[in-house]
Parts: sequence; structure tokens; C-alpha cells
Amino acid sequence: MSNSFGKLFTLTSFGESHGIAIGGVIDGCPAGLKLDLNAIQAELDRRKPGQSKIVTQRKEPDQVEFLSGIFEGQTTGTSIGFIIKNTNQKSKDYSDIKQTFRPSHADYTYTKKYGLRDYRGGGRSSARETANWIVAGAIAKQLLASIKINAFTSSVGEIALNKDYQKLDFSKTEDNMVRCPDAASAEAMITRIQEIKKQGDTIGGTITCVAQNVPLGFGEPIFDKLHARLGQAMLTLNAVKGFEFGSGFEGTKLKGSQHNDAFNKNGSTKTNLSGGIQGGISNGMDIYFKIAFKPVATLLQKYDTIDSDGNAVEVQGKGRHDPCVVPRAVPIVEALTAMVLADFYLLNRLTKV
Amino acid sequence: MSNSFGKLFTLTSFGESHGIAIGGVIDGCPAGLKLDLNAIQAELDRRKPGQSKIVTQRKEPDQVEFLSGIFEGQTTGTSIGFIIKNTNQKSKDYSDIKQTFRPSHADYTYTKKYGLRDYRGGGRSSARETANWIVAGAIAKQLLASIKINAFTSSVGEIALNKDYQKLDFSKTEDNMVRCPDAASAEAMITRIQEIKKQGDTIGGTITCVAQNVPLGFGEPIFDKLHARLGQAMLTLNAVKGFEFGSGFEGTKLKGSQHNDAFNKNGSTKTNLSGGIQGGISNGMDIYFKIAFKPVATLLQKYDTIDSDGNAVEVQGKGRHDPCVVPRAVPIVEALTAMVLADFYLLNRLTKV
Amino acid sequence: MSNSFGKLFTLTSFGESHGIAIGGVIDGCPAGLKLDLNAIQAELDRRKPGQSKIVTQRKEPDQVEFLSGIFEGQTTGTSIGFIIKNTNQKSKDYSDIKQTFRPSHADYTYTKKYGLRDYRGGGRSSARETANWIVAGAIAKQLLASIKINAFTSSVGEIALNKDYQKLDFSKTEDNMVRCPDAASAEAMITRIQEIKKQGDTIGGTITCVAQNVPLGFGEPIFDKLHARLGQAMLTLNAVKGFEFGSGFEGTKLKGSQHNDAFNKNGSTKTNLSGGIQGGISNGMDIYFKIAFKPVATLLQKYDTIDSDGNAVEVQGKGRHDPCVVPRAVPIVEALTAMVLADFYLLNRLTKV
Amino acid sequence: MSNSFGKLFTLTSFGESHGIAIGGVIDGCPAGLKLDLNAIQAELDRRKPGQSKIVTQRKEPDQVEFLSGIFEGQTTGTSIGFIIKNTNQKSKDYSDIKQTFRPSHADYTYTKKYGLRDYRGGGRSSARETANWIVAGAIAKQLLASIKINAFTSSVGEIALNKDYQKLDFSKTEDNMVRCPDAASAEAMITRIQEIKKQGDTIGGTITCVAQNVPLGFGEPIFDKLHARLGQAMLTLNAVKGFEFGSGFEGTKLKGSQHNDAFNKNGSTKTNLSGGIQGGISNGMDIYFKIAFKPVATLLQKYDTIDSDGNAVEVQGKGRHDPCVVPRAVPIVEALTAMVLADFYLLNRLTKV
Repeated sequence: MSNSFGKLFTLTSFGESHGIAIGGVIDGCPAGLKLDLNAIQAELDRRKPGQSKIVTQRKEPDQVEFLSGIFEGQTTGTSIGFIIKNTNQKSKDYSDIKQTFRPSHADYTYTKKYGLRDYRGGGRSSARETANWIVAGAIAKQLLASIKINAFTSSVGEIALNKDYQKLDFSKTEDNMVRCPDAASAEAMITRIQEIKKQGDTIGGTITCVAQNVPLGFGEPIFDKLHARLGQAMLTLNAVKGFEFGSGFEGTKLKGSQHNDAFNKNGSTKTNLSGGIQGGISNGMDIYFKIAFKPVATLLQKYDTIDSDGNAVEVQGKGRHDPCVVPRAVPIVEALTAMVLADFYLLNRLTKV
Repeated sequence: MSNSFGKLFTLTSFGESHGIAIGGVIDGCPAGLKLDLNAIQAELDRRKPGQSKIVTQRKEPDQVEFLSGIFEGQTTGTSIGFIIKNTNQKSKDYSDIKQTFRPSHADYTYTKKYGLRDYRGGGRSSARETANWIVAGAIAKQLLASIKINAFTSSVGEIALNKDYQKLDFSKTEDNMVRCPDAASAEAMITRIQEIKKQGDTIGGTITCVAQNVPLGFGEPIFDKLHARLGQAMLTLNAVKGFEFGSGFEGTKLKGSQHNDAFNKNGSTKTNLSGGIQGGISNGMDIYFKIAFKPVATLLQKYDTIDSDGNAVEVQGKGRHDPCVVPRAVPIVEALTAMVLADFYLLNRLTKV
Repeated sequence: MSNSFGKLFTLTSFGESHGIAIGGVIDGCPAGLKLDLNAIQAELDRRKPGQSKIVTQRKEPDQVEFLSGIFEGQTTGTSIGFIIKNTNQKSKDYSDIKQTFRPSHADYTYTKKYGLRDYRGGGRSSARETANWIVAGAIAKQLLASIKINAFTSSVGEIALNKDYQKLDFSKTEDNMVRCPDAASAEAMITRIQEIKKQGDTIGGTITCVAQNVPLGFGEPIFDKLHARLGQAMLTLNAVKGFEFGSGFEGTKLKGSQHNDAFNKNGSTKTNLSGGIQGGISNGMDIYFKIAFKPVATLLQKYDTIDSDGNAVEVQGKGRHDPCVVPRAVPIVEALTAMVLADFYLLNRLTKV
Repeated sequence: MSNSFGKLFTLTSFGESHGIAIGGVIDGCPAGLKLDLNAIQAELDRRKPGQSKIVTQRKEPDQVEFLSGIFEGQTTGTSIGFIIKNTNQKSKDYSDIKQTFRPSHADYTYTKKYGLRDYRGGGRSSARETANWIVAGAIAKQLLASIKINAFTSSVGEIALNKDYQKLDFSKTEDNMVRCPDAASAEAMITRIQEIKKQGDTIGGTITCVAQNVPLGFGEPIFDKLHARLGQAMLTLNAVKGFEFGSGFEGTKLKGSQHNDAFNKNGSTKTNLSGGIQGGISNGMDIYFKIAFKPVATLLQKYDTIDSDGNAVEVQGKGRHDPCVVPRAVPIVEALTAMVLADFYLLNRLTKV
């Protein structure tokens, strides 16, 4: 298992969805950072279940408790331990999956790889782990106070927000349940999710993230290019199937004469198909990228699968699950982005004599 | 700078395109592996410049010299040092870019980040570095002899190969210059590249890679999910703008009931939209993914840019460059895939008591 | 800050002596290990304060609570989170040192390096952290069930146990307060510590540790030689000033013809001045080493020092401190040894194809 | 195998004593360091064989060739690759040990661990590797120009230099073959080595190292305490059996009231039994430590041993070996110290916001 993230600003995490608590250790946060603990809890509240009609109706307070590393309101440079207690573990909800491998879940691979698994609610493979990332990301955001990180839902199924991010008002992202800053698109997306939910089905989507005011110099080629580490981080998020930055897959259709970003005299570029990163290093322009999420695998329908002895069984999906993972993933994308950028902020202190 | 790749099977590399040599140290290769040195050189020959009409006409033998770690034909468990001499450094070709920042290159970001750069031919940011990866990947391939890794060109600009990979005969990939196993598509792609080349322009494209016979259990959640490490590796490759695996971006449009991969009784799945990876761990099915390459930034045209003092200058692109990076990138994609899989092969030895 | 220990079997820890809790995350323990939780608590009880007349009279239960990674009595391969609550933080005991730098403590260096420190009871620099190591070490011991690790007090001040370890009965180590398996020596050592305690003073000493049944092959040259990693581990322990293994400092006076360990036909050696390690790799013989502990810096006397403004101040030492750190350090030495050996046990799985 | 040293300022090395070349990759050296290449070669010359009557008479030029990372006399921030060719590999000298395990060498453990070994001259376990460390250490010294690192021979066998280091003139260390700055002691040591050499025997000794002008703040508790990393580094050096810093093993006999270092008003201390490190962090005082070297295992005598089939054989030691490793180890100790300090210099840039 690999439960540590980052090189200098690191999170080492633990916890199963139905254990006593999840939590982690944040190491490498510099000393002397004044922390706004309410802002950290507010980020957790953005992710928590039960916050709207289009997400899981599970209720968990997701209250973070810091155990070390903060003294008189400031980081001390020592490791920051924290836990989030699991208050709503209805283990009985999951007893029927003890012997069953749900399709497109991690049940099968965990069991075969490790020889056993904590089958209660996904165990370690549950997206509950992402609450830990929110905590580390919220601290990273405070460390990088001048950098603005905004993620938003850019599509749900076939319904896509077809506007350049420059034309969006990110302050409106939290105005609706689906976290799309364009009101009309948001309404269409919400309608779509509600339809899907009624069918006991789920739907995929995409999130776009924009990081602004990132100083030139973040990124450590060869093997820690900024976009490669962002990509790895996003692909770590449950249900993610793809990552592109700048011109992305569409850029493959262009000619070099169309794609190159000509310089202004001050070193900024007239266009930004590079997505704010050249040679693996931020160039001071906006960094933007898009992430593909598959539909949630847990359905509230009957489906056929196998048990641990290889017998065919029919299962009735039940419980409280998200019909679309995208709205609750928006703050997680921001958190992961902040963690990656915090790491490169520190790495970049080492560049010159 | 971060010049090491991998956790257990590692490459630490060095070298500028116009320095004395490039090279690296492969550490973590188990002892007792009988190496076929000719097979390693053959992989280098697949990548080398000058091999066909549609790639750069630069000539370099790219001969690898092993300096340690191999004794009487076998790995000894000690670190494997190697160099590849730079025989064709025409430094004068690059003297005019000493003071110039080429658009969408790493010139500007390297200079601003480090305070200086080796401006000869891209220096450390040159794709010449990828020859080092070929060497490490070729050894990884031999370590993983039972795993089959096949990459191929799946699009050039708008011209895409629209066939499932299952219908392709990978043995034909090397039959044409563009490395597309479908002869008709290959011909159209080659024609397109030749047109672009005549214009002094460049074009993007995509590569698809398929890894078969990967044992169940490769991948270390939470933070070293197999697809996240594959994604990071591919995004490390020069000019890459995106990565998707399994259903990828198209999968975001599906419903869960369409996307879930139902099990057969033996644990294999009837469909494989998961792309051979569930919960970050290989499930024994084929692993497949697609990579987006932007058009090469170096044009053989006049273009406007700035010099290091911020003055606008006009530059005449010249030299010997690839009009499309994709054909030569095919063996590099395979090499990176092999390196990632070798790492997880070793990590997976640690799973159980 | 560097709060992670180990390469594959790792502990990432947190906690200040007077915070809410200390704890950590153990990552890399293979799945399927049946854990005896009572045995883990028993190791903590060996270390805890208040257990005898010659150690600090502070009372803390030091009860470990596991939060994750263990399911139905077995490790699952996921990270093992745990906490130990701080129940006896008499913060008032330390209020007078808020502005004072105690001599030969970490007060001064922490404050100057980080700009602030948690001054309550030593904060992060407190030996309370070692309870975390006991937990990880106790799990490592269970992973390495066939290896026998025995540490014991080999000197207190000038009073030394002058017997070869082969002549000692390690089962008697716990029979006395000072943890010396030789009853006569133990009595002299206890008397000495009691004298010192009456003076309000402290005294140093040494611990010897013997690891038996370590398989041949532990150790990863060049830079992770077994003895180098054992040395680093022991030097991590509070108050340690030196480490030697095998013939140690006395061996420098010998000639090669006296020092070389001649082989028996089965590969074992007739003598063992090498201390069970040759070329950084265990050779199957007993591993033994000795660790030097300085006298505890906290005295129950008046002493002169400076405050944070550089003023000379006189301080009256008080509180509940160990007059000699050595007896309570014995289980910690064993725990660190077990952690190092567990790491090399896993690393050694990677040696051959 | 673990062939990388350091966390931020790193050396990854390779090479067998009788292969084509040894070498390495230095990564993490900041950009913009003007390098004096002659000074690097001068350090290599201090280590090289054949330099005096009391060391091995083998002749090797040990010329370092830099392949990358240095441009127009400065480091560029990219990885620095280098090689040192093996010019004097008399493989025939070692043919008789192909099937023989020499006592107290790494022959046996390497062969049993890896299944095979490069038996020519010790292969990877040869102290020839230390030439790589000299290169990295010489660059580290230039990065840390204001820090003074002086190592010297403090004993040969029973003959010890019994003076405080404060009373020595380090500028005299290079005045004699044994590298002891006290002329009378040096003469006695040289005489002793010559006697031992005539006997075809070898002798151990100690080196003391003093690092001055180290800024306060080097060291990263908990698990990268400065002295723990120095200890690990020194124990990595071939033939080392012990490490102590500050008061060391003698300090265990003292009382706390004798051992504590009282503060001066400016934060310096009146005594320095702490050895310049408190709580794992440098406190601005001199750092000093002592290293124990066993006698070289290679004798020019007849001795009994076993071959790889477990047969008893008699071997006549021959070749060109050091009768005492200590004089040539002096520059290596300095190099390792510089490498460790360079790492902590960079780590300490990350301490505060």
C-alpha cells in the first residue's frame, strides 16, 4: 500500500469507511502559518454527504479534530495529526456484500490482491478517504493564499458547459447544487441527475479546474513535471478515467502554427494552449485542466454478479449513494490541486544557490 | 530537479542534448536476470532519428554502453550505469537561439526558473532524454517477459484509426513508418505528415497502448494507483497534453448501468470499460490507454517571438525536426509502460505475509 | 520536519507530549498478519512511566487505540492508524520554562529553527514520541516472529556488566527494575541510580542489543547497509551519543589477523567480531551492538541558564523525571531494531528474479 | 540495492572495482553554483591509491569526467552525470578468489544474497565506490563554502592522538602521510603502520571530524536528526564499526550536572559536550564526531577459508592493499560530511513560511 502523497508537503492517510475514524498526518508544512480552522471545516462541509437533493442522503458531520502540530493558532513545523470520526457506519447496510463482488468496484481486486478485505462500505477503497485530502488541501490553500484555485462541473453526461472558463464567474459555483457557475447549464445538469436518480442509475461527467496567480517556476523536470503530478493526483480520485490540460485531446488535431503560444514582450503569451505549463514548469499564465469521471458503479437496481466462490448471484442495489459523483468531487479536485501546488512551492525554494 | 523515476525499479538519468553524453543509473533490477543486449539496442533503434522520411533527418547511432551491474550476461543486483554518447551535436545549429525564447518550448521557463540554461538544442528539456527511458524500459520488458506491451499510432491530426484494438494485428505496427497497424490508416497518416512537412509545419496525434497478460494485483492504492502512475509516466513524455484509460472521456457520457463491467464466473469481465484496472489495481484484463500529443513546437517557418531582453524578434526556424512526434514516440510509450509495470511487479511482492 | 521512518515498513508519527494525543500511521505491513493486540500493549507497558522506583513517577496508561488497517484480527494491507491519548498533561508543571531555554535540551534549537515551539513538556522533542515507536516495533516483532531481539542495560555510569552476551540469560532481563539480566550487576546499577536520584542528579549508561536468527541477506548496500540503518535508528533515540556494532571501537586496536572471522565449512564463522554483518548484509550470525546514552539533561537542582531574551536566569528543576533513561529505553531499542529488520525483511524479497 | 544517498542533495552511484567505469548522478544541486573543477580533482587525488608508502601501491589516475549539468562553468540545476574510468583493472590478480570466500569480506554475503557476484576485486563492495562520494562531496563543499570541515587520523591501533581538537592546527593534516595534524603522533602512527605492513598484517584506527561554522538549524527531527544522518553516513564507509559524537561513549559515565552545556547570553554554550547538536538540530557550536575503523580484512599472509562449495582451502593473500585504511579515509569522511550537510542546508530552506 502507498498511503503517502507528496514529496515535501506530504499527507500520509489511513482509514476505512466503516472503521472508527479516518485521518492522517500532514508533514512538511512550514512553521509559522496562522491557520483558520473554520475555513478548513468549511471545505469539509462542501464535500460532506447529505448537503443537497442530488447527492447521497447519508448524514455525517465530518468534523476534523487536530491532534498535534498546531500551537497557539500557528503551525509549529512539526507533523500535524488529525482524525475524522466515522459516526454513521451502518455496517448492516453492507452485510449482504460480504461475499459478493460488485461490478466495477474494488471488491474483487482488493480481495484477490490482499487475500482479505474490510467489506464494510468499500473499506479503504471508499471515497470517504477523500475527506482526508480535503483537510490537507485546505491547509495547502492557506499556505498558498495568493493562488486562486477554482474547480467546477463542466459536464454531466452529455450536458456540457460550452463556455471558455474566462467567461465564467467562479463566485457563482457554489450557488447551485451541481457546482456549475453557469446558471442555465447548472439547471440542465441538475435535471439530468434527478432523472438518472429516479431510474436508480448513475451518470458520469467532467470537472474543469483553473489555478490562477501560480508563480512562474513550479514544476521539477524531468520526472516531476507540474502537469504530470497534477495528472497523477487527479487520476488518484475515485472514478476518474482521464486528464487533459491546456489544449488536451483537441490539441492533437492542430498544426504547430496554430498551437504555439506567441510571447508578449513581458513573457506572457497571447494565447494559452499550453495551459500555463511549458517544459513541465509553470509559466505564470493560468493553469487549467479537465478531468473525466465515469458513472458511479453503485446502482439502486437489480444486477447480476458473482460471489467469492465464483457463483452467479443477483443483487438488489440499495443504500445511500451519489447518482453523480461530480458535484461533491469539485472541492476534492481543488484540494488535490492545492496539495500539488504546495509541494512545488516548497520544491521551488531549492532551485537556485 | 527531479531526475529519478520509479519507487523500486528506478531510473536516475542525466544529460543534455548537446553535452558529451546522456545516460543513467537503473537501480532495483533484481539479480539473476539474463539480459539480451541486442534487444535493448533494437529498442533504441526504433526511437532513433533518421530512420524514415517522416521523422527528423538527424543521424545519431544512439549506441548504449553499459558500465556496471551486468556480469557474465546477468544482472548482479547492483546498479546498472549506462551512457549514450552524443555524436552529432551541431552546436552551431542552435547558436541563434541562445538569446531567443522559442514559443511553446521550455526555453523561457527554464531560463526564468534556473537563472540560466544550456541553450544548445533544448538542453535537458530535449526529447533526447527519452533514449535513456528506452534503455530502462527495454530491461523492464525483459524482466516482465510474459507481459505483452504494444503501442501504436491511433491518430495523426484529424486522421484517426477507428477500430477496436482487439481487431488489430500488432505484429504489423512496425510495417510502416508511422507505426499504425492498420495499413490503410497508416497510409493516410503518412500522407498527412508529408503534407504538413512540406508546409514547414507540424501536427499532433494520439498513441494507444495495450498491456496484456498483466497479472492481477499490480497497483498500490491509495496514492499509487496503477492508472495514476501510468498517467504520470505518459504526461512526463514531451508534448503530451492528455491521458485517458478504459472508457476515458467518452465514458463520462454513459450511465452506470451501461458502464459497469459484469463478471464472468472466473472473475474476468464480460466488457472492459474499466480498462483492466479497478480500484487502482490490475484485474487481469487488458490494460489500455490513450495519450494526446500536441504538434511539435519547432517549425521550419518564420515566426515572431522575444529575446531574453524582452525585445520582439523574428526567427527563421531551421534544423532537422520531426513534423509529427507520434511515430517515434511509440517505443517510448512502451518503454515507460514497462518501467511502471516493473515497479508494480516488485511492489506486489510485498503485499502478503 | 521528517516524521517518517523506514522505506517499505514505515511509521509516520505525530504528537507533542502535552497535546491531545500522539500517534501514527504504519504503512507497508503485509496483509494477513494475525495480530496479538495484548502483546503490543504489553510492550507499551514496559516503556510507560511510573513502573518502578528508579524511573519517573509520572503515571500515564499509554493505551494504544487502533483506528484502521486491522479487520477481524488481521492486517488488511492498508495503513494502520493509531493514537495514544495524553491523559496526564500537567501543563502547569512547565509554565515556568515557557521563556526559558533549558541547557542541553532542544528548547533553544527548536525555537531558533522554527521561530516558535510548543514549550509544554518538550513538545515534539519529548521522549513521549517513543511510545509510537513501541507500537510500530511491536507489530514488526510479530511480523518477524522467528527473530529474537533482546536488549538489556549493559552499564550505568561507571558500573558495567562485564560479561559476554552469550553468557547471559535474556529471560532474566525483566526480573529487575534496571533491565540487566545479571542479578549482581543489576543490584549495583540500581543502587547507583538511587544515589544519583537523591542528589537530584542524573546518570548515563549503555544498552546492548542482540538480534538472533536474522536470516542471511538483510541489508541493501551501498547506502542502506544494515548496520548503517541500525545506527541511524539508534541515534534517533533521545539522549544517544554513540553506536558501535561487532568489535566496535575496541576493534580499532586489533590487527587484521586477530580481527578476521574465519569460516566454518557451513559458512558460519568461528568468531564474530563482524557482529553478524559483512559488507552491510547480515551473514546469519548474531547481530549485536551497543548504544551510549548521555545523562538526562533535566535535573532536580538549581541551575543557571538564559531566557528567550538572553537574560541570565536561575531555575529550580522540578517535576517527575527519569534519573537514568536507560531502563525505560531497553524496550525502545528493541522496537527500533524490529522496525529496521522488518524493513530489510521486505526489501530482501526484491533481491532476485 | 540502494544506490542513492541523500534526500534533496542526492548521489545515485554505480560501478564495480574492475568494470569499465564507476560514476554517478548528482541531483538536487541548486543552479548557479560556480564550480572549481580543479578543486574536485584535488579531493580525488587525496583519496587515490599510490600516493604514499603507507597506502596501497596500486596506481590509478581517478580522473573525473563530467557529462552533464554544468554549463559555462556553472551548475544549471539539472542532474550532474559523471564517470571515473577504471584504468588499472588487473583482473588476473583476483582470479584465484573467484571460488573463494575471503574472511570478513563481503564475498560470502553478496554471493548468498544475490546468487552471483562480480568477484573481480570486490566488485560493487569495493571501496573504489568511495571515489564517487569524493566527487559529490567536493561539490557539496563548494555549495557550503563558509562551512569548514576537517577530518584527521586520531588513532592507529593503540597509538592515539590525545589532544583536544581545539589545540590542533588543521592546516598541518596534509603535512604527513597518515593525515594526523600532530607531528609527533603522526610519526608514531606511521612507524606503527610500517611495522604492520612488514608483517603482512593490517591495523585499525579512528578518524575524528570537526565541522565548524555550521549554521544553527541543520537537522530535521524526528527521523532525520543531524547526528543520526551523520552516523548513518559514516557507518556506510567500508570497515567502519562505530560512531560517536560530542561526549560519546565516555559521556555515559558522567552525571547530568557535569554533562549539561550551560548557555552564554548569546545562546552559545560554555562547554560543548553536546557536540554542536541538540534535539537533532545544529546549535551553531562546533560539530565533532569520531569513527572507528576495523583493520583491513585483506592480509598478505596465508590464511584458511572456504570455497563456494564449502571446502576448506588455504589462501596466500597478495596484491596491493592498504595496511591501514585510515589515512585514505580522511578525505572520504570529509566528503560524506559535506554531502550530509548540503542535504540539511537545503532541507532547512523549507522550515518557515
